[in-house]
Amino acid sequence: MNSSVLDQLWATIQARKQTMPAGSYTADLFRKGENEIVKKVGEEAVEVVVAVKGETDDRVIYESADLVYHLLVLLAWKGLTWQEVEEELARRFG
Amino acid sequence: MNSSVLDQLWATIQARKQTMPAGSYTADLFRKGENEIVKKVGEEAVEVVVAVKGETDDRVIYESADLVYHLLVLLAWKGLTWQEVEEELARRFG
Amino acid sequence: MNSSVLDQLWATIQARKQTMPAGSYTADLFRKGENEIVKKVGEEAVEVVVAVKGETDDRVIYESADLVYHLLVLLAWKGLTWQEVEEELARRFG
Amino acid sequence: MNSSVLDQLWATIQARKQTMPAGSYTADLFRKGENEIVKKVGEEAVEVVVAVKGETDDRVIYESADLVYHLLVLLAWKGLTWQEVEEELARRFG
Repeated sequence: MNSSVLDQLWATIQARKQTMPAGSYTADLFRKGENEIVKKVGEEAVEVVVAVKGETDDRVIYESADLVYHLLVLLAWKGLTWQEVEEELARRFG
Repeated sequence: MNSSVLDQLWATIQARKQTMPAGSYTADLFRKGENEIVKKVGEEAVEVVVAVKGETDDRVIYESADLVYHLLVLLAWKGLTWQEVEEELARRFG
Repeated sequence: MNSSVLDQLWATIQARKQTMPAGSYTADLFRKGENEIVKKVGEEAVEVVVAVKGETDDRVIYESADLVYHLLVLLAWKGLTWQEVEEELARRFG
Repeated sequence: MNSSVLDQLWATIQARKQTMPAGSYTADLFRKGENEIVKKVGEEAVEVVVAVKGETDDRVIYESADLVYHLLVLLAWKGLTWQEVEEELARRFG
């Protein structure tokens, strides 16, 4: 097996959405619902901007990971898939 | 060969940064510099939020792809790598 | 008469919404509709952030004015008023 | 005397910056510093967007007030003034 980190993260998020385990941050986001999840995507993008303009490289990596993770949660919430985003990117950049 | 779409996109962005070809949107972003690139990340996140709250699923996919692409350009601008973001995600969700 | 700059700006925006004159940027925003107006509010906030972190004080003032203006347009679009925002602020800070 | 709500709010924020009283939310923001204050401006703009697209009118007013308040705190942090923003708006809209 050779799946990418994002594929594995995507599978984990989908599993959390199915089983909604107590104590899971991802399951908590699903419980809070769409408005809270989209806010997180917006907020994490702001954190990336501020990290780039005024913090360390480690912070940029950390906040970028936060942004990508919350974007995947949002796609899962909507019933969309990370694969559809990859296909859109492949279409553009061949 | 079995690299993911993101790995290929990352390689393309890195190549654009090396050769800076005329007519390339990615090279244009590098020419505009950091402030314009970080603004794009912030703006694309807002576009994702609006797409989720008031547009179609196709628009959500399209804007999510835009956000991921501009985040990769930002990482490349900073001399950071997509692999570092993957490693951060793997560390958390390993 | 002694009304504040914001009161006058608010009156101008309301007038544009009534008469929708050709060539008016404000009227164009109303024609584009809610999604475009909310995007502008989000984008202008990002511009303020970037101006503070990497541009001049003049740019901070300029982008802050942009943000306030687009927020007023958004309130007008929604049929809300700047006075309601002032009342909310007065309630808190009275 | 007939100063607007914003003028009074501005005076309050300036006073907090001088005296930095314990237990004041505004003083806490000044203590946290620039990165945290700019993040709040970005986050509150996202909250306005989400309120418009998926919440009640009362929430739009509430989040708009939050956005304006944090913008004033940011101007005060930078040593700029609300009056300069008003002057910029007056210059544009006569």
